[in-house]
Amino acid sequence: MKALVLERVGELSLRDIDLPQEMGPDDVRIRLHTVGVCGSDVHYYTHGRIGDFVVNEPMVLGHEAAGTVIEVGANVTHLQPGDRVCMEPGIPDPKSRASRLGLYNVDPAVTFWATPPVHGVLVPETVHPASFTYKLPDNVSFAEGAMVEPFAVGMQAATRARITPGDTAVVTGCGTIGIMVALAALAGGCSRVLISDLSETKLKLAETYDGITGVNLREQNLVEAVNTATDGWGADIVFECSGAAAAVRDLFKVVRPGGTIVLVGLPPEPVPMDIAAACSRECRIETVFRYANVFDRALALIAAGKVDLKPLVSGTFSFEQSIAAFERAAEARPEDVKLQIIVDGEGN
Amino acid sequence: MKALVLERVGELSLRDIDLPQEMGPDDVRIRLHTVGVCGSDVHYYTHGRIGDFVVNEPMVLGHEAAGTVIEVGANVTHLQPGDRVCMEPGIPDPKSRASRLGLYNVDPAVTFWATPPVHGVLVPETVHPASFTYKLPDNVSFAEGAMVEPFAVGMQAATRARITPGDTAVVTGCGTIGIMVALAALAGGCSRVLISDLSETKLKLAETYDGITGVNLREQNLVEAVNTATDGWGADIVFECSGAAAAVRDLFKVVRPGGTIVLVGLPPEPVPMDIAAACSRECRIETVFRYANVFDRALALIAAGKVDLKPLVSGTFSFEQSIAAFERAAEARPEDVKLQIIVDGEGN
Amino acid sequence: MKALVLERVGELSLRDIDLPQEMGPDDVRIRLHTVGVCGSDVHYYTHGRIGDFVVNEPMVLGHEAAGTVIEVGANVTHLQPGDRVCMEPGIPDPKSRASRLGLYNVDPAVTFWATPPVHGVLVPETVHPASFTYKLPDNVSFAEGAMVEPFAVGMQAATRARITPGDTAVVTGCGTIGIMVALAALAGGCSRVLISDLSETKLKLAETYDGITGVNLREQNLVEAVNTATDGWGADIVFECSGAAAAVRDLFKVVRPGGTIVLVGLPPEPVPMDIAAACSRECRIETVFRYANVFDRALALIAAGKVDLKPLVSGTFSFEQSIAAFERAAEARPEDVKLQIIVDGEGN
Amino acid sequence: MKALVLERVGELSLRDIDLPQEMGPDDVRIRLHTVGVCGSDVHYYTHGRIGDFVVNEPMVLGHEAAGTVIEVGANVTHLQPGDRVCMEPGIPDPKSRASRLGLYNVDPAVTFWATPPVHGVLVPETVHPASFTYKLPDNVSFAEGAMVEPFAVGMQAATRARITPGDTAVVTGCGTIGIMVALAALAGGCSRVLISDLSETKLKLAETYDGITGVNLREQNLVEAVNTATDGWGADIVFECSGAAAAVRDLFKVVRPGGTIVLVGLPPEPVPMDIAAACSRECRIETVFRYANVFDRALALIAAGKVDLKPLVSGTFSFEQSIAAFERAAEARPEDVKLQIIVDGEGN
Repeated sequence: MKALVLERVGELSLRDIDLPQEMGPDDVRIRLHTVGVCGSDVHYYTHGRIGDFVVNEPMVLGHEAAGTVIEVGANVTHLQPGDRVCMEPGIPDPKSRASRLGLYNVDPAVTFWATPPVHGVLVPETVHPASFTYKLPDNVSFAEGAMVEPFAVGMQAATRARITPGDTAVVTGCGTIGIMVALAALAGGCSRVLISDLSETKLKLAETYDGITGVNLREQNLVEAVNTATDGWGADIVFECSGAAAAVRDLFKVVRPGGTIVLVGLPPEPVPMDIAAACSRECRIETVFRYANVFDRALALIAAGKVDLKPLVSGTFSFEQSIAAFERAAEARPEDVKLQIIVDGEGN
Repeated sequence: MKALVLERVGELSLRDIDLPQEMGPDDVRIRLHTVGVCGSDVHYYTHGRIGDFVVNEPMVLGHEAAGTVIEVGANVTHLQPGDRVCMEPGIPDPKSRASRLGLYNVDPAVTFWATPPVHGVLVPETVHPASFTYKLPDNVSFAEGAMVEPFAVGMQAATRARITPGDTAVVTGCGTIGIMVALAALAGGCSRVLISDLSETKLKLAETYDGITGVNLREQNLVEAVNTATDGWGADIVFECSGAAAAVRDLFKVVRPGGTIVLVGLPPEPVPMDIAAACSRECRIETVFRYANVFDRALALIAAGKVDLKPLVSGTFSFEQSIAAFERAAEARPEDVKLQIIVDGEGN
Repeated sequence: MKALVLERVGELSLRDIDLPQEMGPDDVRIRLHTVGVCGSDVHYYTHGRIGDFVVNEPMVLGHEAAGTVIEVGANVTHLQPGDRVCMEPGIPDPKSRASRLGLYNVDPAVTFWATPPVHGVLVPETVHPASFTYKLPDNVSFAEGAMVEPFAVGMQAATRARITPGDTAVVTGCGTIGIMVALAALAGGCSRVLISDLSETKLKLAETYDGITGVNLREQNLVEAVNTATDGWGADIVFECSGAAAAVRDLFKVVRPGGTIVLVGLPPEPVPMDIAAACSRECRIETVFRYANVFDRALALIAAGKVDLKPLVSGTFSFEQSIAAFERAAEARPEDVKLQIIVDGEGN
Repeated sequence: MKALVLERVGELSLRDIDLPQEMGPDDVRIRLHTVGVCGSDVHYYTHGRIGDFVVNEPMVLGHEAAGTVIEVGANVTHLQPGDRVCMEPGIPDPKSRASRLGLYNVDPAVTFWATPPVHGVLVPETVHPASFTYKLPDNVSFAEGAMVEPFAVGMQAATRARITPGDTAVVTGCGTIGIMVALAALAGGCSRVLISDLSETKLKLAETYDGITGVNLREQNLVEAVNTATDGWGADIVFECSGAAAAVRDLFKVVRPGGTIVLVGLPPEPVPMDIAAACSRECRIETVFRYANVFDRALALIAAGKVDLKPLVSGTFSFEQSIAAFERAAEARPEDVKLQIIVDGEGN
């Protein structure tokens, strides 16, 4: 089976690889159509590791995927061949302590596509548990289907924030995840989002959405901008999506008394946090690890037209062009929100 | 001061009345512009009482109000003369036990406009605590400002529901409050709302909004409609806005396992509830009493364009036509969502 | 294998029965030691059905069980032969939608011991999923272990109540479940519990616990008793454990503004509920269906000495006396909280 | 009026001072009986400031107080002369935005006893809002009444933790606040508390309470101790009460997946926090600022015997010995949990 394989740090090849793909009674077989390029895929390509996860052997990349069911296991009732679907890339042990609590995303036993040593799905076909495979509504395209995975991080952030309808939110960091979080926050009940970044290009792109106002940190101080927008009260919710120490430093000046911080961005090292300042506003701080139980909700919002992810696909490549797609992604152009690869547009 | 006075059940007059309107240091004086006609105003007119609240003396009606600040007390800093505002009609004791808990709406000491023996605001001027007076954003009209009060009930329902982004909601009852709840639920994070009623006129009106689907109970069974829409899983949230025993009876067949019921409609008598059925889905049931801490959030959503209340004003009357407005309201035409009275369009 | 079999309504026999007991890799085999007699077991014996669950074929009774592991499946790591354990009698589909949400108790696919057509465990041995089998701490006896199941209902009620430390609780109904709920409420953070019933015997028994005060409804009005105890404010939480319409009627006079009702008792028919009264206090109503994720917490509280269930075992019978135990239970003596059967005190 | 006055850093005097003590209609006048010495009082004495709060003029110390009502304002109904009471030392603006949300502790307008420039209550008499004055149950002594304030911090921490009954908690730091938090956590539903410190004396003192196990960090690694106690799962809740960077560093290794951190201790400077580690367990982090709405709950738990604060009073001084009390407190003896001053044991 042909696959986009990360041979080792800095070396990709599109080549045949032997992958076990046996079906169990609760599984479905899926022909891949569209797979997005994620920052983590690129990071494995450029650095060979993310934290404790190290690429020691060739690994297939790709975990943001949509395709078509071509075979279903004996126990599967909610899907059938021909169904267009997207897939949740993390598979927990459903009997684990975390799973029983509804926290399957933090089950230590989770296996996750394209996280060493687990292969991803830049391949023609894969086998996946039916319970983590979601039918796309008719008005949701494969491109959108493959965007559900990154959008799910935004959904998880918006869910854990426990938005009160009409909240004012701030998002620090206008990268792909920052935009996903902003869109989920708006769809999830916020009245408006102020999003901050150093890149005017990224901010302009985000501002094409109703309800999002950019704050260019080269021109404006975020604390002042939020105070002006909220009559000095502060934001109800601040989603930290930059992973930058400078953003973390100001969180407790931006949030209102009794407000909420949601930590989404992952700083590579511990960063200084002013606990006394956090306490003086008695804020609640939530953290986000991937997502649980949000794919169906994400699809519902997309199908309803409350979230439009289509403008965020900034480039589409054929499977043959996969390596070019990764090279482009590695450039990290500010105007690129999401690049996607069409694995097989014909067979689907 | 001229006022619309309910003299006794069935008898309204537009006449002079002497009302104490002394300013305290925390108060503002407001010239009324627009006042909506609420079902409770009409009910006092037609029945002379609502539950334990009985009209024993002449009472000024009206509590859905917007106007212009014309004087501010010495301690008031967030408002100034000329500000266009809307007002929260219930005034609690801020030192009460309930208020200290943030539950000022259930403070037994609350006084509420146009609830005997407290006068309403179908008058040219009133004095009100500044802390319950809200500045209208520039793009929010007086008509919308006077709609904030009924919409606040929807906001309270949506807030207490604790919507998870993407939830599917059902609203039973497509009257004014049902529509308000549906709009608040959508703005507050639901992906879609199914709303049920016996009146096709009302449903058609509601369906002019994106995300709302009507279920005509003369043609469709609600349980079946919800099962079809949710693959048999049930609705995440059911807002009961009809006050009808038949709607209450089916609530636990409509809600999903672990879902939420929000009781908004007030049946005049106790109604049978199937507690065993409620338990078998282990649902949470929230109740709503007016609102607390939602006016600012309601205004934020309206200003952001996430909620459009303008199409719901189905008739506008001059102050001189006030009695005609009430007579029309008493007809309860299915196409009338909200009638409003312009107390003084000139002076504002 | 010898078992206590309900042959049909009103007819029990202790006889051999053939039960499939194959081990899977995630299972354990348990030798039963103590099994409690539950009101539902007795109800199947005396009525042959509970709601839609009808005894159409001979069924083994018993689901409150403790015993000793005698064999473990290949994947089992947290248990080993010789471990003393108690078991959760409901087995959900871990891949179901409800299970993934952490709500496995409301999974429609749950199978539950001694609920037709599933056999119970008044048998010498059984096979059970290891993930629903809990090791007893050294200072917890088999008798206490077999009490964890009924106590788990109390734990679920206390958990869903979301107790704020120091809350005042009322429990209506002083049967076995009422006492379990009262003990869980106290261990879970309540400062005191008022419990109401018509039986002085039951109330006296409950009052042997610190923190519980009985209200004999033959002598005292509950609303008045609660008003006196709370200076007219009302109880923070009311646990309805009687299933009686009269208790449901007064719930909203007993609870404080903004307080919580937890419905545990199951009235056989729909009962009148005063929704307007519920709304006027804007209370939250939670419902309880069995339990999820509480066995480990229940054991922690028992082992810590915060909950003492030992005084509630009012009679212990040998396996040979099983039918006598059921006859005694069917008498429903007010002084009997829990009767237990020692299936095999020797082999454990 | 005689008072314990902090003249300037390092200089105390017991001398006459003129304090305005006019009664309003919502106030009560209180004769002080017992006042505890708080670490913040001592810190103002030894350092002259805490953060931005600087002692620029002579200030009366003391804010942990109990006494007797000797006069009540015209509007006061729940108190009368002769009532034994304790007082909440922070007075918010009840009309503020924070107060209306139920978050009066984070109202920027709060004035707080013995926080510059507001005087404390090491004086014979004071005037206080009745709504922040709490009647002591008959079985609660003045000494216990004066302990309610520090215990209230523990109550706030336990409340914000949202304990699930049976939770395992860890408390880092076994100072006065650490012990208060541990007791509140146990009374609030935890099954057990592991508390860590470097002082064996402090740990031994804490261990005199049922349910508390000390972890001496000179002998044991906390992460290992928690893993052993929880079979590697981690603690449900970790209360950080040390303000030490080393404790903050390990928080996310001690908490279970999906668990809760409560930050109580205030490090003087920002401390490094490993956000990626926090996210990988997707924990929730709560912060605590003083307390709101907990005094009545604290008193309920003390009166019920669920919390025994009496053993924590390690020394009692007469008003004349006040300076000696502060000098002893400044020594910070590990065996001293709380020193108290009897302002007037006769007149009460």
